[in-house]
Amino acid sequence: MTLIDPPSVLAPKGFTGQGVFCDVKQLGTGKGSNKGKKRDLAIIYSESPCVAAGMFTTNQVCAAPVKVCLEHLEHDSAQAIVVNSGNANACTGEKGLKDARAMCEQTAKALGLSRSQILVASTGRIGLPLPMRKIKSGIIDAAGQLTALQSGADHVAEAIMTSDTHPKQFSVALELGGKTVRIGAAAKGAGMIHPGMSPSGQRPLSMPLHATMLGFVTTDACIDKLTLQQCLTQSVASSFNRITVDGDMSTNDTVLALANGLAENPLLSISSKSSSKPKDLRHFQEALDHVCLELAKMLVRDGEGVSRFATVFLEGARNDLDADLALRSVCNSALVKTSWLGGDPNWGRILDALGYSQATIDPMRVDIAYSASKSSRKIHSLRAGKPSKVAFKTLCELVAGPEIFLHINLNLGKGRGVMYASDLTEDYVTFNKGDVSDPASLGG
Amino acid sequence: MTLIDPPSVLAPKGFTGQGVFCDVKQLGTGKGSNKGKKRDLAIIYSESPCVAAGMFTTNQVCAAPVKVCLEHLEHDSAQAIVVNSGNANACTGEKGLKDARAMCEQTAKALGLSRSQILVASTGRIGLPLPMRKIKSGIIDAAGQLTALQSGADHVAEAIMTSDTHPKQFSVALELGGKTVRIGAAAKGAGMIHPGMSPSGQRPLSMPLHATMLGFVTTDACIDKLTLQQCLTQSVASSFNRITVDGDMSTNDTVLALANGLAENPLLSISSKSSSKPKDLRHFQEALDHVCLELAKMLVRDGEGVSRFATVFLEGARNDLDADLALRSVCNSALVKTSWLGGDPNWGRILDALGYSQATIDPMRVDIAYSASKSSRKIHSLRAGKPSKVAFKTLCELVAGPEIFLHINLNLGKGRGVMYASDLTEDYVTFNKGDVSDPASLGG
Repeated sequence: MTLIDPPSVLAPKGFTGQGVFCDVKQLGTGKGSNKGKKRDLAIIYSESPCVAAGMFTTNQVCAAPVKVCLEHLEHDSAQAIVVNSGNANACTGEKGLKDARAMCEQTAKALGLSRSQILVASTGRIGLPLPMRKIKSGIIDAAGQLTALQSGADHVAEAIMTSDTHPKQFSVALELGGKTVRIGAAAKGAGMIHPGMSPSGQRPLSMPLHATMLGFVTTDACIDKLTLQQCLTQSVASSFNRITVDGDMSTNDTVLALANGLAENPLLSISSKSSSKPKDLRHFQEALDHVCLELAKMLVRDGEGVSRFATVFLEGARNDLDADLALRSVCNSALVKTSWLGGDPNWGRILDALGYSQATIDPMRVDIAYSASKSSRKIHSLRAGKPSKVAFKTLCELVAGPEIFLHINLNLGKGRGVMYASDLTEDYVTFNKGDVSDPASLGG
Repeated sequence: MTLIDPPSVLAPKGFTGQGVFCDVKQLGTGKGSNKGKKRDLAIIYSESPCVAAGMFTTNQVCAAPVKVCLEHLEHDSAQAIVVNSGNANACTGEKGLKDARAMCEQTAKALGLSRSQILVASTGRIGLPLPMRKIKSGIIDAAGQLTALQSGADHVAEAIMTSDTHPKQFSVALELGGKTVRIGAAAKGAGMIHPGMSPSGQRPLSMPLHATMLGFVTTDACIDKLTLQQCLTQSVASSFNRITVDGDMSTNDTVLALANGLAENPLLSISSKSSSKPKDLRHFQEALDHVCLELAKMLVRDGEGVSRFATVFLEGARNDLDADLALRSVCNSALVKTSWLGGDPNWGRILDALGYSQATIDPMRVDIAYSASKSSRKIHSLRAGKPSKVAFKTLCELVAGPEIFLHINLNLGKGRGVMYASDLTEDYVTFNKGDVSDPASLGG
């Protein structure tokens, strides 16, 4: 696997795209980071039909574009994605559904496709009807300027941003059966970030609770639909579903993948009837995992007000579900997050959050350690529930930087997991309280 | 029921108390609100033996004084409570248990009682051993200055404070069987406030997840032990267990009640063999409910950095557990809390938090309304999932003050509940990030 640099969501063969300004955000005098004529509508297009897969918010309040994607994914092929920022088209009732379908219809018309071949996503303020005249002019504008050039990819990544401070793309290439396969992706995040997505938008009973994040993956891999969905489900489970900024799960979280097969590699398939090589599939999965994880981490680092990024490893839980419950309790604790902001190696707050989680713990068995990097030596602050003799200053040095590595061992079983989380800052609060005298400053 | 003014935890007959400074907090140059020689050890004493009851954190990491209270409550009588602030004696292992028992032993010795007649509570930083020499001198000091005067009560209420900005007491009197019965109480809160207490410290399966808060109730009512525990359990369920500041449940949450019977009212008892009048018991329960609720609200209003107080009513849930899950999701959402800070009537964030709660909702049935006071007319921002035509400015006016009244109806069933919550402010973040160069500034 090699990185494609500069990163581009349009790196795979046959993909073009564009991002344009059509004034959905109505920014006016908004004091957010996105002032003036920021791009707010994007199209990603494949010159040949694709198999498609998706992962969607499990919030019971799910936005119209999520519902329309689920309808369209029932069809065998897709060929384009249309996305707007500035308005989430969430909590907009029947009109919202009609508008999301109209976005697809207009995109299909502009591209000479049928409506069901279009996938759709929206992000931004909840509860306002989409400004459909603006959206339509944006679609026509973007569809008329599709390009495979870097500028097209960069404009797509810009157009999907809300409170993000910079666009996010990642892309890799790998060899499969003598052919070069490329995977490209773009994503956005910033606030309301605690995704818990599933392929159906339905919450599995075993799935614990967890902003709008959007992710778009393109590939020229030759892969069947079921296999693409399985690969995407697995990649999202270990990336976007493992991040949190503020613990608020959005109504719009969506990751979509399009695969057009133009790389002409031997078909990747989990079907037992297929002659697909397990090794090829494993390599594709690893590449997709890597793309999704790198983008997921970028989302946390660029989360609203975020100053510090924490990787929290947990092992020794009774089972993986307990590991997840314990991790989410720690990573969403206001007191743990403010201690990270302060560079305070406060194991007491961590142990407290473990204790009130729904995971089973035994306080007298818990180990808590920090390390300077992912793989460097762990320095324990707590061992078997007892404070270590390591100097407070030494621990402080380990949590003084922008990257914190925290290791928790419950010492009860084989359950394990990891989460990528942020600190909680004054800037997060200031940004999200907004300014009611300037409605354009109010977030989703 | 009449209020006793000024409020006093020592209002009931036969109770004395004192709060003293013994330097547990080691404040040094601490920049917290409690600089210098703040009182940090308190004793509440009854001149005659009491029946006692308690409610304790359901955090699996529970502090040593909680465990010792549970042991001592198995005995038939109690006669004093000893409390320190500045150090939680939590996560302190076997030494912590020994220290908590020694606090009781020393108090018993100073008062001429046996150890099991003493209940104990601690609040403050987690993970540090108690400075037992200081504690002992504080106990001797306090025990030597016990008084029924208002100054004693005020010193008790001061000595239990951590980041609280002011002491909190409440007291009432009621007539039962021709006798005047008094209930007094003192409490502290500020941060790590999301109590979920039970009589055993064990979490009932049906109990959802929810700082250090401490509450001490005194009464001269004549009541049996089982009845006092039942009354306290019910009062705490509808008061302290219904509040949240930051969603972090402490390792030390404790409410203790002592009843010495000196009012000589007819025995209050739930026992069928008793001739206790149901009406008397109901009146006592109402009075205790009132005392606990008023103190619980004070805790939220004086929470760390809190600028706004929200009362959130929810009805129409499938059942009361769902109502509770939905309420806690809304009241602990960073985005909902920052919108309260901003005076932004953002129903989208409320609906989003309902949607990711574990409660069942149907977004197309949800009503969201505000009112200017508890009982004034509701102004809907959302009806059956659809935004109302009420002007944004009108809604803004309803959430512009220090008190917000939010009404949610899920319209699915008969489950209902209420929670008392706060906004999330920059001051909360600044306070809790602390200053690692000044360990005394670091909170629990």
